[in-house]
Amino acid sequence: MSIYWEEFYSTHAAPADFGDNKARMEEFTARHLAKMGKIALITSGGTTVPLEHNTVRFVDNFSAGTRGSASAEYFLQEDYAVIFLYRFKSLEPFVRHFMGQKFLDLLEITKNEGASSIQVKTNVTEEVLPILQQYQAVKKSQQLLCVGFTSLADYLWLLRAACELLTPFKTRALLYLAAAVSDFYIPSHQMPTHKMQSDSGPPTISLQLVPKMLKPLVSLWVPEAFVVSFKLETDETILISKARGALEKYNHKMVIANILQTRKQKVVVVTSNTVTELLLTPEEIQSDLEIEEKIVKFVTKSHAVFCSP
Amino acid sequence: MSIYWEEFYSTHAAPADFGDNKARMEEFTARHLAKMGKIALITSGGTTVPLEHNTVRFVDNFSAGTRGSASAEYFLQEDYAVIFLYRFKSLEPFVRHFMGQKFLDLLEITKNEGASSIQVKTNVTEEVLPILQQYQAVKKSQQLLCVGFTSLADYLWLLRAACELLTPFKTRALLYLAAAVSDFYIPSHQMPTHKMQSDSGPPTISLQLVPKMLKPLVSLWVPEAFVVSFKLETDETILISKARGALEKYNHKMVIANILQTRKQKVVVVTSNTVTELLLTPEEIQSDLEIEEKIVKFVTKSHAVFCSP
Repeated sequence: MSIYWEEFYSTHAAPADFGDNKARMEEFTARHLAKMGKIALITSGGTTVPLEHNTVRFVDNFSAGTRGSASAEYFLQEDYAVIFLYRFKSLEPFVRHFMGQKFLDLLEITKNEGASSIQVKTNVTEEVLPILQQYQAVKKSQQLLCVGFTSLADYLWLLRAACELLTPFKTRALLYLAAAVSDFYIPSHQMPTHKMQSDSGPPTISLQLVPKMLKPLVSLWVPEAFVVSFKLETDETILISKARGALEKYNHKMVIANILQTRKQKVVVVTSNTVTELLLTPEEIQSDLEIEEKIVKFVTKSHAVFCSP
Repeated sequence: MSIYWEEFYSTHAAPADFGDNKARMEEFTARHLAKMGKIALITSGGTTVPLEHNTVRFVDNFSAGTRGSASAEYFLQEDYAVIFLYRFKSLEPFVRHFMGQKFLDLLEITKNEGASSIQVKTNVTEEVLPILQQYQAVKKSQQLLCVGFTSLADYLWLLRAACELLTPFKTRALLYLAAAVSDFYIPSHQMPTHKMQSDSGPPTISLQLVPKMLKPLVSLWVPEAFVVSFKLETDETILISKARGALEKYNHKMVIANILQTRKQKVVVVTSNTVTELLLTPEEIQSDLEIEEKIVKFVTKSHAVFCSP
């Protein structure tokens, strides 16, 4: 099994921007290691699996990055340094509140003695202000590092590098693996170079299982860290047993289990000896509370207990 | 063949929001039909093909929506009414200039007698102003209708409905089919209900060819319209022959052919009796000119000739 995951790295070259991103993570972790605070690696969004070397088509995993990007804001509020490893164009912390045309609709032009200036409309200033303030504060304190990926290979290279840089943080490192990572891929040598042509009829795609990186991650890369994984299913009847199975198999600390259809109102946190349901009440949903606030509170509390001597 | 495309609609139900979107398009086209101007239907972004009914995984087509969203702005400048049929979360006209964190970085907070207000920073006002002005003008004149899709089935239902509403515009209707539509899909009855489990080993996905909707579109839905399709390839040697083949097969007006790697600097416009290369000079690239400006100028000029008696 260990050979299997090593083989993935030996047969898939590091992405072109890997060196730059690794250097950014090195600078970030070195700076925060000296501060003796806690650090979270949050992964977010889906990974793609190309069907061609010159990629026109790919298999993707459903994930807007809501869970990861919202959670990042709450980890920052809890004073964690955060490496946000996210799928390009999935949601990012802070800016996630202003998607689509919404941003342009916030603005108005005023003319003063011939000169134009642009303001956020007065009636929405109150809504924008706290988000902008937190964003600016985080930027100033350099507490957040965003690193983007697209493909499964990009993700796996960055994940391993980030883990290795988190090792010296020991128990102060928390991994919050919310990305929706492909289970299947097409091995590099089986991939056509050019766009598949439809003239010759529909192709059959043979997929191969992606090695379970949680295994080397927990046992080798960050053995002292507090590792939280996620389990998304559509079938409620197998959810808890799948979560327990993962804990037994990988021996990490916590699985956050959720059902696709209800994941914004309810999750179940499974540890080796506890099962805790976190959910939003109708009143909380009404007042726009996000379930990620509850999840992050629960996780950071457990992490604090785990860290205390 | 005609039975084949009809079968797609009879076996794939209209999406839940189809009725609402159709009503919006009806209102839009009715209003603009009275004005006797030109109208463009622009399709943009990729379509997804779900691998499960409760969709966790899907096959996607590479497309950020750059071509379609940029072109929409230039068609609006040429006084076309525009229906922008786009993949949710792909680029949209105007707002495409402010992606990622860029928007929050444009803003600054000022305090005046205790009250906070938010402005666009003075040094970027000049950059934001023309885009915001065009956006506001278009919004006021109601010249642009944006309609979103995700899956192949969503797209095909909306495409046919839009075409039927464009029929009364006769030659004044222009179709600019820039969306990257899947060639393959998994028929509804072959799709599993729940997320595929990896325990039982990697699955094999059998794909089926998507019927070529350009056929009924040109010959039945909008027979008088000026139809422009796109051809994206990665292999230069087959590009022109594929474009010619499409024109012969579907009998529409124009194919804009491009190679994945160079598509932002160069396209080849192929008609039944002409081949025209449009490209950006190094100076034009330097000054941030977009190739879509040239494409839209060429297309609208050809459309004007086509419309004139």
